[in-house]
Amino acid sequence: MKPLIIAGKEIKSRLFIGTGKFPSPKVMAEALEVSGAEIVTVALRRVSFNSPDPTLSAIDFDKYIVLPNTSGAKDAEEAVRLARLARAASGINWVKLEVTPDPVYLLPDPFETLKAAEMLVKEGFVVLPYMHADPVLAKRLEDVGCATVMPLAAPIGSARGLKTEEFIRIIVEQANVPVVVDAGLGLPSHAARAIELGADAVLVNTAIALAEDPVKMARAFKLAVESAVLGIEAGPIEEQEKASASSPLTGFLD
Amino acid sequence: MKPLIIAGKEIKSRLFIGTGKFPSPKVMAEALEVSGAEIVTVALRRVSFNSPDPTLSAIDFDKYIVLPNTSGAKDAEEAVRLARLARAASGINWVKLEVTPDPVYLLPDPFETLKAAEMLVKEGFVVLPYMHADPVLAKRLEDVGCATVMPLAAPIGSARGLKTEEFIRIIVEQANVPVVVDAGLGLPSHAARAIELGADAVLVNTAIALAEDPVKMARAFKLAVESAVLGIEAGPIEEQEKASASSPLTGFLD
Amino acid sequence: MKPLIIAGKEIKSRLFIGTGKFPSPKVMAEALEVSGAEIVTVALRRVSFNSPDPTLSAIDFDKYIVLPNTSGAKDAEEAVRLARLARAASGINWVKLEVTPDPVYLLPDPFETLKAAEMLVKEGFVVLPYMHADPVLAKRLEDVGCATVMPLAAPIGSARGLKTEEFIRIIVEQANVPVVVDAGLGLPSHAARAIELGADAVLVNTAIALAEDPVKMARAFKLAVESAVLGIEAGPIEEQEKASASSPLTGFLD
Amino acid sequence: MKPLIIAGKEIKSRLFIGTGKFPSPKVMAEALEVSGAEIVTVALRRVSFNSPDPTLSAIDFDKYIVLPNTSGAKDAEEAVRLARLARAASGINWVKLEVTPDPVYLLPDPFETLKAAEMLVKEGFVVLPYMHADPVLAKRLEDVGCATVMPLAAPIGSARGLKTEEFIRIIVEQANVPVVVDAGLGLPSHAARAIELGADAVLVNTAIALAEDPVKMARAFKLAVESAVLGIEAGPIEEQEKASASSPLTGFLD
Repeated sequence: MKPLIIAGKEIKSRLFIGTGKFPSPKVMAEALEVSGAEIVTVALRRVSFNSPDPTLSAIDFDKYIVLPNTSGAKDAEEAVRLARLARAASGINWVKLEVTPDPVYLLPDPFETLKAAEMLVKEGFVVLPYMHADPVLAKRLEDVGCATVMPLAAPIGSARGLKTEEFIRIIVEQANVPVVVDAGLGLPSHAARAIELGADAVLVNTAIALAEDPVKMARAFKLAVESAVLGIEAGPIEEQEKASASSPLTGFLD
Repeated sequence: MKPLIIAGKEIKSRLFIGTGKFPSPKVMAEALEVSGAEIVTVALRRVSFNSPDPTLSAIDFDKYIVLPNTSGAKDAEEAVRLARLARAASGINWVKLEVTPDPVYLLPDPFETLKAAEMLVKEGFVVLPYMHADPVLAKRLEDVGCATVMPLAAPIGSARGLKTEEFIRIIVEQANVPVVVDAGLGLPSHAARAIELGADAVLVNTAIALAEDPVKMARAFKLAVESAVLGIEAGPIEEQEKASASSPLTGFLD
Repeated sequence: MKPLIIAGKEIKSRLFIGTGKFPSPKVMAEALEVSGAEIVTVALRRVSFNSPDPTLSAIDFDKYIVLPNTSGAKDAEEAVRLARLARAASGINWVKLEVTPDPVYLLPDPFETLKAAEMLVKEGFVVLPYMHADPVLAKRLEDVGCATVMPLAAPIGSARGLKTEEFIRIIVEQANVPVVVDAGLGLPSHAARAIELGADAVLVNTAIALAEDPVKMARAFKLAVESAVLGIEAGPIEEQEKASASSPLTGFLD
Repeated sequence: MKPLIIAGKEIKSRLFIGTGKFPSPKVMAEALEVSGAEIVTVALRRVSFNSPDPTLSAIDFDKYIVLPNTSGAKDAEEAVRLARLARAASGINWVKLEVTPDPVYLLPDPFETLKAAEMLVKEGFVVLPYMHADPVLAKRLEDVGCATVMPLAAPIGSARGLKTEEFIRIIVEQANVPVVVDAGLGLPSHAARAIELGADAVLVNTAIALAEDPVKMARAFKLAVESAVLGIEAGPIEEQEKASASSPLTGFLD
């Protein structure tokens, strides 16, 4: 697999972690540790860079690339405002852009997302946008300078797995920036499948944070992603219509 | 996950490996090594326990449980004969029972398989039968004393993945012996999915042996299976109809 | 599509109907009428050929081929006994063979089914066996003289649709007798899909009988099956990897 | 099913037909006739309203609502220009809006589509936009006054079926305008499935036009759509986890 490079930084781990919903900052920190993740996203509406914050305090900023996200933003303006505030307080100029006006499925708005992406790129942000698995939208976000595209697998937190397989394939085929599958992955096999389809990485939050044992689940996703990366590199066989004996029939008994 | 115990032996690794089709005995031996497998199956029509055999010579019999298989047997009689010859020559009384009269899809024959299973169990063999993912057949094989059931995912060597999901679920729900998903797994995510559905183990051969880099693919499947085991143990979240925000919207900015 | 001929009789309708669970004999009779079905199956444990029976009274025996079924039989012996009783009382020598020892999923037993099929064929019955979608079993049932094979789509009454697609394809490819997909079809599109895969007919009961409006649903399945037959006959296009414009771009405006 | 009303007109048929790629205008006319369609779409880049055109001549304008489409338009400007020319020449103010800059998969551009939709609505057009199955985009198109939304099932002409099921469900749930599934439907069962998911109608072109027998295939799709409408109206049963006997076991033989 080709190296995963975002804004000039090589990222070894193909698993990004979201920090919402963990039972405690301590559990979150342990889950991050065992996940091997290098990129960790935090919600700007939930954490404060200005005052002591338990989530942020539990994250080792020397070890992880902290990726503020605009979760909860209803339009481009709100997303841009959140990103600017975060940068002013933290000095971080990476942002995971989420604009989700729909309160039920939390699906991303292509128009507000593109608008915010364009503004943030111009202001020097490294922008990683959450998006529907729409290949034309992916090209547009790439064209305005986004550092990655982050198509969804299924609605956030739904754990329904890769419901957009047909279109993730096309996005991967056409993208010149890394493709990070985000949202809806509920099980390790879902994450492995996304990588096998050609995604450069996956982002997982709810499936880890709300597992009975978040730390063990973090390790599970780590291994799943690594298995899929190795599988791609190992050159898988093609699907066949017919069977093919593992043990050809000629042999000493014939 | 409950321990995997077959005929009184605890098996730590949930990945069984078939030895057919590897580019060389040396590559096979390396793949076995990195796979972490404890159970390794060899085709009795292809290897000889009576004379020097390059495949068998490459397997460390102190390290692996060698599971002779009756691949290529067209009926119960042939399968039983193969098993007896193997036991006489090797002292091994475990057998992976395969009876596949169909030359195109190599699908297992339920009648000849049950007949052979009954005979072999009576003769003191530990019998692990390859079978269609038919829950009633699974109960019958269990009832005659089989040590496991080994339902197929898809035709052997087809790499088509878990096409029998609906019925693997039922087999797992009803089985009192270990369920090992066998045949048709082509990618690490397929193996992980089988374990997530509740299978106790998977058997992989073609997908590893015919990968461009079999050793790396063996490692990929090892990690996939481990990831799924951890995932099950970690208590996954349930699938949801609606979305659920990873980052609840209340926060310092409100 | 080739004509559907069972035991020398040409059957025009590709939709067979089961008569269980209807709200009333009158509704059942109307549903049969609009379904266009020619073959109608009745459960021998539920209806009596010896005394006045409301279900049987509602069926026009001059119009329909009444196919007694052995639903509820736990083994071959019981199934054979039911078939013989029915023939003695009614003169009908067709039988839909169902042997389902499993009380939860009502899945068919391959061993008892084959055994009963053999006996019934020898006694001059026209045997249509309900079976798992196991291609080797299908060949065996064909070999002992069954008039059709009736592989399941999903557990009876589950309405889950065609969960055995991979194996229905193989059964269709290999069969020399008609293939009738039975059990688990819940919606018109499920029935259409089965025919598109190559099945000669489908049998539907619960999805019609327990619909809010069984008569309307009977008509829905009738049209679905007819649509799929026409679709197969019309020579469908192949699936494509890429898109292909419906409206090629050269034209008067260029 | 609630009536399908577009711009105040009630449309009885749930099947819309595209007119590209037919072997001849004559075959096209026959296919339209048997399809029962009331809405027929023609590509503005392929047909001419200004001079005698064989496709248009074959369509009975008194019988069908002719829906000019902007197939081949690369951006909003081109689409708007095509629509205006068509209206000027024909007096028709309905337009199927297609903006597909991607030459390989012909996927619709959400930005140019929304922009063109807004302009055309303001100019008094009845706009039916082809779109990705993105629920947020659907709301936006509805909000600017589109008369329907037309989410894709799969890439145009791919015949791959309903690959966007997860999101069609959400679009249907949230829409206040009719939802017409467009593009990628290859078989009658695909069309039936779309209606069963809640779509108000489907549009089919390639699967009919390029079938070996387009007229027969038109009839197949007609019946498939009708079957699904009836199925929905008949109140289908719910999917079950377990089986449920069609023929309850109590009866005269017990």
